[in-house]
Amino acid sequence: MTNASICTIGDEILIGQIVDTNSSRISRALEEIGIKVTRMLSIGDDSEEIITNLDNELRHNGIVVTTGGLGPTRDDITKAALAALSGSSTYIQNDTQLEIIHSILQARGLDVLDINKAQALVPDTCEVIPNRLGTAPVMVFRFPEERYGHPSTLYSLPGVPFEAEGALPDVINDIKAHTPLTDIFHKCVMVAGLAESALSKLIEPWEDSLPADMRLAYLPNQLTGVRLRLSIYGGDKEEEERRIDERFALLKPILGDRIYAYSDDTLQNAIGALFRGTGMTLSAAESCTGGMISSLITSVPGASEYYLGSVTSYAVAVKESVLGVKPDTVNEYGVVSPEVAAAMAEGVRKLTGSTYSVATTGLAGPGGDERNPVGTVWIGLSGPNGTSTVSKVYKNDRKRNIERFASAALDELRLFVLKDLNA
Amino acid sequence: MTNASICTIGDEILIGQIVDTNSSRISRALEEIGIKVTRMLSIGDDSEEIITNLDNELRHNGIVVTTGGLGPTRDDITKAALAALSGSSTYIQNDTQLEIIHSILQARGLDVLDINKAQALVPDTCEVIPNRLGTAPVMVFRFPEERYGHPSTLYSLPGVPFEAEGALPDVINDIKAHTPLTDIFHKCVMVAGLAESALSKLIEPWEDSLPADMRLAYLPNQLTGVRLRLSIYGGDKEEEERRIDERFALLKPILGDRIYAYSDDTLQNAIGALFRGTGMTLSAAESCTGGMISSLITSVPGASEYYLGSVTSYAVAVKESVLGVKPDTVNEYGVVSPEVAAAMAEGVRKLTGSTYSVATTGLAGPGGDERNPVGTVWIGLSGPNGTSTVSKVYKNDRKRNIERFASAALDELRLFVLKDLNA
Repeated sequence: MTNASICTIGDEILIGQIVDTNSSRISRALEEIGIKVTRMLSIGDDSEEIITNLDNELRHNGIVVTTGGLGPTRDDITKAALAALSGSSTYIQNDTQLEIIHSILQARGLDVLDINKAQALVPDTCEVIPNRLGTAPVMVFRFPEERYGHPSTLYSLPGVPFEAEGALPDVINDIKAHTPLTDIFHKCVMVAGLAESALSKLIEPWEDSLPADMRLAYLPNQLTGVRLRLSIYGGDKEEEERRIDERFALLKPILGDRIYAYSDDTLQNAIGALFRGTGMTLSAAESCTGGMISSLITSVPGASEYYLGSVTSYAVAVKESVLGVKPDTVNEYGVVSPEVAAAMAEGVRKLTGSTYSVATTGLAGPGGDERNPVGTVWIGLSGPNGTSTVSKVYKNDRKRNIERFASAALDELRLFVLKDLNA
Repeated sequence: MTNASICTIGDEILIGQIVDTNSSRISRALEEIGIKVTRMLSIGDDSEEIITNLDNELRHNGIVVTTGGLGPTRDDITKAALAALSGSSTYIQNDTQLEIIHSILQARGLDVLDINKAQALVPDTCEVIPNRLGTAPVMVFRFPEERYGHPSTLYSLPGVPFEAEGALPDVINDIKAHTPLTDIFHKCVMVAGLAESALSKLIEPWEDSLPADMRLAYLPNQLTGVRLRLSIYGGDKEEEERRIDERFALLKPILGDRIYAYSDDTLQNAIGALFRGTGMTLSAAESCTGGMISSLITSVPGASEYYLGSVTSYAVAVKESVLGVKPDTVNEYGVVSPEVAAAMAEGVRKLTGSTYSVATTGLAGPGGDERNPVGTVWIGLSGPNGTSTVSKVYKNDRKRNIERFASAALDELRLFVLKDLNA
């Protein structure tokens, strides 16, 4: 099995100003093609440190992936360090990347400066994978077996997370093309509405009965629920995927509609799949979630086919004047109540003329009110067969509570529409 | 200066199942007392790996902080590895931690099992800092100068983030009591509306004139712009902070209102600072940003003081019926136009009665329309002194374009309100 090391370069991670999210993403991508990550490392923008550390990582691993230190400014010195490490003293221009640099900067109405153009220059010891999302290209340095006692390859990726993420598929393809890999098969199911521990308890007998060569992972996410992944190393693709499907089929009687997808997916995509092509439409009314539900729904390309829009009624006056929530309802039951959630859902459905609507009113924190603890949300759902409400209580900080509220609202909306479709 | 290394132990980080947030928190705490973090490392639950790597880190650093691998189950082997590394074959019971274990488990209604009690046993080569938030104590191993050529100390913290965070003040106090420390000072300015390269070009002469002991870093972020950070090691706190402030003061004539904060901050906070306590209110109308502007504004605790709400008018019909955009305006100029952006901003301002409003209409992708390329956004701004519009073009994928649009809208709103305040 090929081992890999992941190395982030940059003072901003080392001094704790930003949390490194690239390494875990890269690790998951490597793991999916059967490469074992043995170490992750973060080092600063210091030439000697970069050279010494990467030399050491290459000695112990067939693949080293670095991120960071490729910006146009002077504090970014990864490229020069990699030139030194690979024995290059000549830089050559990569025309494809230069074109990308021009088009990115021109699209932003910016002049192409010399420091921008310089980003298309790379050491003559590397191959280039163009970076279409940013100005710094991915550099690939292949070291012959003589150097470290085994063939080894270093991939230098930009540090900006979306650029690193964008470059990752090309990097993975390059690794696949150049490395003998053990086959590995993964399949996922997405489960919403259950905490990891509750899910684990519920499926314990199923988990205990898994064959010894299948490995189960729980991958929980605030917004998308728990991803359950089964993996098998080696074997025949069709046969192994059939065996995994068989196991997942046994989960359905246990989890029912809590399962919303049989591949890595999101709740907003699952909702898109329910609405698309049906002519049904959707709207939202948000208080505590402040726009996040709408933002998630519209993150799906083509959402305009079924999504009409939303009202964020942060102020009570907007709940009343725009959504038509009655002042009496607010006074009698409080803003955070099933009555207001229902009135908001019905109000936005009427306002936009949508088939379905979802609404939230709650307390993300800090601080609760006289009736509800912080972390309480009421979700309102309205559709052709009536209106219903459901409440949830979470115990996180403001940011996490808002995410949990939005995720719960999408999940309840999904179940609400499903119930009608299955009726 | 004392150097430090931070090491997370555990397969769950290495295979990318969870993102490591402990290391950045520990790093910030160390930086604050003038300890330079030279490396961060993540390794798996493998005894030999743990011993070899920590031995190496101790050789190069006066302080090594580890997190993880201290749980009660069999896959947690950090304690045994540390016993081996420090030459201990005897475990002794820490009575304080044993009491904590009893009280934690009893509070959860759980029996105290032998594997729980065993967590209070520690190698006789370490000192204990009790962990009041969890069952595994913090272990402190002090290695004499003879062993590594310099005195060095290893702190082993639990991996659960809130336990690691809870133990950190005691660890920092222990380090302060045992280590001669050099001070370090950082300060930041936040700059919006300029790409990293354009900013770099603009402040080049300023950057060139920085004293040799000041180090500048560019920390760009999709949503918050570029953070510029100056650092100085050593010296007197007041004097050095004054020197950094002096340098930042010289930036103001170059960058003007592009600077929106003199500490790590966000555009939505800067907007909160403009509105809070003034009685002025704010609303938003979103098309292409789909709710993200509203979501960002409401991520600020206490936003309800000035934020009334928003309308996401994803469908043209909602632009017309809820925001009052005239069908003729849409037909004549197209949905993505300054005219529609202005009408949306004026519409939501009228609907909610807010002092100011911001609106977006654009094409996040995939695909442009007959008049505009993908990545185009028109931002509408309305206030007591009139309405104005501005357009931007970005070249990212859908997700990033939406983020850029939202960030640009917040920045333009900030400048629009500032202009009135400065008038």
